[in-house]
Amino acid sequence: MATDSTSTSKGPGRPSSSPSERLLGGIFARGEAAAETGDEALLGAMLDVEAALARAWARTGAIPAGDADAIAAACDPARFDVAALGAEAARHAQPVVGLVAALRAAVGPPADEHVHRGATSQDVLDTALMLVARRALAPLAGDLRAAADACAALAREHARTPIAGRTLLQQALPTTFGLKAAGWTVALDDARAELMRVRAEVLAVQLGGPVGALDAPEVAAALGKELGLAVPPIPWHADRRRPAQLAAALGVAAGAVAKLARDVTLLAQDEVAEVREGGAGGRSSAMAHKRNPVASVSALACAQRAPGLVATLLGAMGQEHERAAGAWQAEWEPLLELLRVTGSAAAWARDLLEHLQVDTVRMAELAGPDPDLGVAAELVNRALATRG
Amino acid sequence: MATDSTSTSKGPGRPSSSPSERLLGGIFARGEAAAETGDEALLGAMLDVEAALARAWARTGAIPAGDADAIAAACDPARFDVAALGAEAARHAQPVVGLVAALRAAVGPPADEHVHRGATSQDVLDTALMLVARRALAPLAGDLRAAADACAALAREHARTPIAGRTLLQQALPTTFGLKAAGWTVALDDARAELMRVRAEVLAVQLGGPVGALDAPEVAAALGKELGLAVPPIPWHADRRRPAQLAAALGVAAGAVAKLARDVTLLAQDEVAEVREGGAGGRSSAMAHKRNPVASVSALACAQRAPGLVATLLGAMGQEHERAAGAWQAEWEPLLELLRVTGSAAAWARDLLEHLQVDTVRMAELAGPDPDLGVAAELVNRALATRG
Amino acid sequence: MATDSTSTSKGPGRPSSSPSERLLGGIFARGEAAAETGDEALLGAMLDVEAALARAWARTGAIPAGDADAIAAACDPARFDVAALGAEAARHAQPVVGLVAALRAAVGPPADEHVHRGATSQDVLDTALMLVARRALAPLAGDLRAAADACAALAREHARTPIAGRTLLQQALPTTFGLKAAGWTVALDDARAELMRVRAEVLAVQLGGPVGALDAPEVAAALGKELGLAVPPIPWHADRRRPAQLAAALGVAAGAVAKLARDVTLLAQDEVAEVREGGAGGRSSAMAHKRNPVASVSALACAQRAPGLVATLLGAMGQEHERAAGAWQAEWEPLLELLRVTGSAAAWARDLLEHLQVDTVRMAELAGPDPDLGVAAELVNRALATRG
Amino acid sequence: MATDSTSTSKGPGRPSSSPSERLLGGIFARGEAAAETGDEALLGAMLDVEAALARAWARTGAIPAGDADAIAAACDPARFDVAALGAEAARHAQPVVGLVAALRAAVGPPADEHVHRGATSQDVLDTALMLVARRALAPLAGDLRAAADACAALAREHARTPIAGRTLLQQALPTTFGLKAAGWTVALDDARAELMRVRAEVLAVQLGGPVGALDAPEVAAALGKELGLAVPPIPWHADRRRPAQLAAALGVAAGAVAKLARDVTLLAQDEVAEVREGGAGGRSSAMAHKRNPVASVSALACAQRAPGLVATLLGAMGQEHERAAGAWQAEWEPLLELLRVTGSAAAWARDLLEHLQVDTVRMAELAGPDPDLGVAAELVNRALATRG
Repeated sequence: MATDSTSTSKGPGRPSSSPSERLLGGIFARGEAAAETGDEALLGAMLDVEAALARAWARTGAIPAGDADAIAAACDPARFDVAALGAEAARHAQPVVGLVAALRAAVGPPADEHVHRGATSQDVLDTALMLVARRALAPLAGDLRAAADACAALAREHARTPIAGRTLLQQALPTTFGLKAAGWTVALDDARAELMRVRAEVLAVQLGGPVGALDAPEVAAALGKELGLAVPPIPWHADRRRPAQLAAALGVAAGAVAKLARDVTLLAQDEVAEVREGGAGGRSSAMAHKRNPVASVSALACAQRAPGLVATLLGAMGQEHERAAGAWQAEWEPLLELLRVTGSAAAWARDLLEHLQVDTVRMAELAGPDPDLGVAAELVNRALATRG
Repeated sequence: MATDSTSTSKGPGRPSSSPSERLLGGIFARGEAAAETGDEALLGAMLDVEAALARAWARTGAIPAGDADAIAAACDPARFDVAALGAEAARHAQPVVGLVAALRAAVGPPADEHVHRGATSQDVLDTALMLVARRALAPLAGDLRAAADACAALAREHARTPIAGRTLLQQALPTTFGLKAAGWTVALDDARAELMRVRAEVLAVQLGGPVGALDAPEVAAALGKELGLAVPPIPWHADRRRPAQLAAALGVAAGAVAKLARDVTLLAQDEVAEVREGGAGGRSSAMAHKRNPVASVSALACAQRAPGLVATLLGAMGQEHERAAGAWQAEWEPLLELLRVTGSAAAWARDLLEHLQVDTVRMAELAGPDPDLGVAAELVNRALATRG
Repeated sequence: MATDSTSTSKGPGRPSSSPSERLLGGIFARGEAAAETGDEALLGAMLDVEAALARAWARTGAIPAGDADAIAAACDPARFDVAALGAEAARHAQPVVGLVAALRAAVGPPADEHVHRGATSQDVLDTALMLVARRALAPLAGDLRAAADACAALAREHARTPIAGRTLLQQALPTTFGLKAAGWTVALDDARAELMRVRAEVLAVQLGGPVGALDAPEVAAALGKELGLAVPPIPWHADRRRPAQLAAALGVAAGAVAKLARDVTLLAQDEVAEVREGGAGGRSSAMAHKRNPVASVSALACAQRAPGLVATLLGAMGQEHERAAGAWQAEWEPLLELLRVTGSAAAWARDLLEHLQVDTVRMAELAGPDPDLGVAAELVNRALATRG
Repeated sequence: MATDSTSTSKGPGRPSSSPSERLLGGIFARGEAAAETGDEALLGAMLDVEAALARAWARTGAIPAGDADAIAAACDPARFDVAALGAEAARHAQPVVGLVAALRAAVGPPADEHVHRGATSQDVLDTALMLVARRALAPLAGDLRAAADACAALAREHARTPIAGRTLLQQALPTTFGLKAAGWTVALDDARAELMRVRAEVLAVQLGGPVGALDAPEVAAALGKELGLAVPPIPWHADRRRPAQLAAALGVAAGAVAKLARDVTLLAQDEVAEVREGGAGGRSSAMAHKRNPVASVSALACAQRAPGLVATLLGAMGQEHERAAGAWQAEWEPLLELLRVTGSAAAWARDLLEHLQVDTVRMAELAGPDPDLGVAAELVNRALATRG
């Protein structure tokens, strides 16, 4: 990885801001959700909102269709200078004023006067963050689904595989590994279902104008339709239930991953040795039979960061009047980060569960007196029967 | 309040543990939810679970109906010594072992052998906490509903009352106070709806036996029916989505209260003077016209404690195996506390909104150029039309 | 524990508010610190502040010594009705107004006019909370010290006892159990030293009058001397560094306990079986050789609650003007709770370490190739040499 | 800011990972601390540790000086590919294995065999993070110092400028603006002093080898000397007091900024109008006399993120055995982020205070009856007299 310094346009040593290409990105930005949470993704989402807004107004006849097309054509993230926008953001405590000015310049007359019509900066940023969330939740939920599928397969296969039940980290009565995996499956499925509910019902267009008093239901409806977001009865500038509920659902999903990853690290201890990770990571060159539980450790590391971020989002709900002096702005990066680390946790969980190696002989050895395998199998069946 | 020390059996200076009667109870345990979160309530809920469990087994014929009746009759909290149970809890890192022993002693033979049948301590405590939540959520939701009703009345009355919109704590374009109140109403309604959804769908019976492998669907169903709790497909001993989602919904409700309470403290500033609290508190003996915003300050004080508690519950989700060594136990008090402070926040919000005094002249004075009152009124109508 | 209902004046079923006597008090209010965090303790501390304040003014000659004595004599917590004070607190969003009125009534003329002289409610409550912290930190630090002593003894005894080092929960190179215990010792010692530093330097008198502009350095100095608190250069009404630093030091202490308790739960797993708890709790009647790690589980349960509480205290630092509208009030209960659960964690750690049973044969068995015992012993010596 | 896409090697639309150049960097990565928290800075710090380690061993004679020089020469961040290192990090749940391999390749024989001598990955990463903190704290403390100086100047200038004291957001007795500013000054000074104490005493070299049992005091001492870090008595692999205390001190500093920024937003309200921000940002093109409080809003937005991050660091203290499975890894990004946002908060505070415009006429108008200006001035003097 050390290279001479002549090669690429980016050059060695020049870090990218794409979350997955950063120094710790392999751990904390795994999977496809991360790409939706970086600067390019947020910039792209803001531009998508501006483009959709122009088209929505055009649909109402308020601006010429050609102008909307011109605006939409200019909404190409590659044409904007992120660092310059970032510097300009410092002058307004938000990045939209600078973006709109740059977009107007890119569009040129006469269409430039229709850029950002009726909207306030918060409309664009709130809607863009909802859009970012919508986009990130798709791969995130996909990874949770794949993880749950892998988990359900383990549950089915091992429905009657005895394993020691353990309470307070002490061996208790036996259960089956399948029932344990069924518990993980239910948790993953439920967490995903809740995220999908939030995605469909909670993620919503923001369109309220300067003080949340814009009444443009047709435009909002068109925006919602184009961007795949719900259309709320009234603007929600200072009612932060939506980011907070999104955060909470992500926190619960991270917790579901933490539970199974914790179990795997414990089952993979040398002294227990009932499972072993089988993914690409963790192989020791010196000791071929040794495997560090890289996936579960990484999943835990991602998941443990969620509660503090959720608390930040919840703590930001008490926003002043029509736009908060600090609390609104405090939401942005934590929300992006929460999407990223929860997405990464989900991707690690998938990797972990799709490659988990199970030592049924060792499990039986430690399980002690036979569990009631019939009961366990019945519970596994019942758990899996509820899957969509 | 200073008294001679001869009077009551409790005696002055002897604090009660009823949350509302404690030294700071007037602030942090307002409303009816608090009473469901104290020691007596939790003890009562555990005993209700034991009683319901006995009856549920009797229904299946597994134990004689008379024995179930004897057990249920003994499940009277007044017969148990809380301090002794607390001391015994230290020997087991949970209070159920001691309670079951005391209950068995109270029941006596022959019914005592059927006490706690099939259950493990976690079954009783988890189900009891769900029951506590169910009970506390009723008055809590009632206060949120009453607060929202008062808020909706303000929205309706002031749909066309101009007020300065304020962004970053600076005056911006005018809006109407009714639209502002409509925003609060929507937030309160949504928070309550989410809590009621959680109450109906998420709060669930726990019945899994020692390692979560008990299969007694009829008993679980009977328990759920009697206690008003959902019946999950399989036990959820180490899948902590339920307490976490409950916590999250409480956190969002606290945030909805924080928002409006924050606004009221700001509108009540002497320099703004657009509203004034009208409840019982806050009157200055020296200055009759002065009112400290006691209700909004107390509501904020309660609400600000929620995010940290939610984070604790979320952070506890990574529980080991079939019963966690610390993380499960860490949930109990924070959950009770979260119910209490959110309940108190809701009660304060109700008090606040039911007595809010609005100075429309002052509002108009500061509002500047007339807002589009028709648009605001239309938005208010649309917001209130969605109310159940 | 079930009793007939005729016995005591308190009666069974009537919970006490003394933290250690509550239903979960055995777990979350262990040790002597808890008693300093209850209603009686806070009430007592507020009265101690009022008494000390009167005496301090008397020393300056501002009020007659006899009046100060009369005031001090009335400052007996047993003479006040906690529930009534709690109810009155709701009218002021703080409990001091009610207490001062009750104290004035108890004192009677002519001394009553000197009650609470110069002070504002916040002076009394802030100083009382500092005093509560000072009192609670003594036993808390004592338990940390005893825990560290027990730990140091383990380190010394087992300086050359081989044990497997474990990274990512996988066996790695061997180390010695003594070195492991030395690490715990250093952490406990450092956490205690930091708490004692905070106790000596950070806990301070508050005396600023209504808006923090009182200048009474002699009175403040006398208060500080009597109560054992530092005397700050100016009042700190809205500079919340002191509660926040106290909270942070408690959080770090809780974390130090969590680390060793986590290790003990892992070492005590049946599959590892290198240590076993030896305290009073956790014995199974059915299986005499089995021991639930009750102390470490309880310590973890206490410790895991600290971070959320610390975050609440830190999040409350942004207080408005001369007295905050919500954020100040939000500090009180979390600070008391943090003292209680950290104190309980420390007491559990002490119990745990004073009775830990070490299986050196099993340790050697799992340790694999001999560690460099000389190096480990040297590190242990070096670690212990730094102890005070 | 919209540009054609032919220009630079980086190209428009290609975001940088330098925190200050990112899309929201102007707000959340202000000041010089941020540059120490990015990928390049962390990579550079890891390489500095490897170079210092080689030199330290050379000093003991364990490796040839020439080899140490060769290693140090190769430790140039520009020669390493961040994205490739990030990808490799996923295979080990940490980035050091990949870095050491790349460094060995860059060094080549024979010196390559001495790369990373005696160290484990955690040694390098922990020491590097301490180094990052040390570097970031210098400008951060510089900004806090400059902010406090500006604040002290305000305090001095306005020691006798009357202003309304405000409690619960209601006007109370008058005080002086100088006394208010003196309170801010003390808080900033104390926060900085605590950070500098942490920097000098708490930030420490980590050198423990695979399981924390390396005993190389001379090497550790040389490392500490070269890197400016304390040398602990024994390795602290699983004793996470150091990152936790660092985090806590940052959290307190963020809180000190939040307090004054909150006050400024309130004083800058149109209805109060006692101060106005005077920095570069916030000017309205439409309304020249209007100023959005961009600096205080940004400071608040940064500061509000600290408590959740501190909680994450505290919650990570319960680390397993000699290297944690998740909790250690969970520290890295939150620590970097906490340094970044606290640094940015400090830079905003400095900007805010160095340009604050004070309207003494308006202050006097609202202050009501004259405060005791002599007392206030005396308190200001006393506060400022304690400055270093």
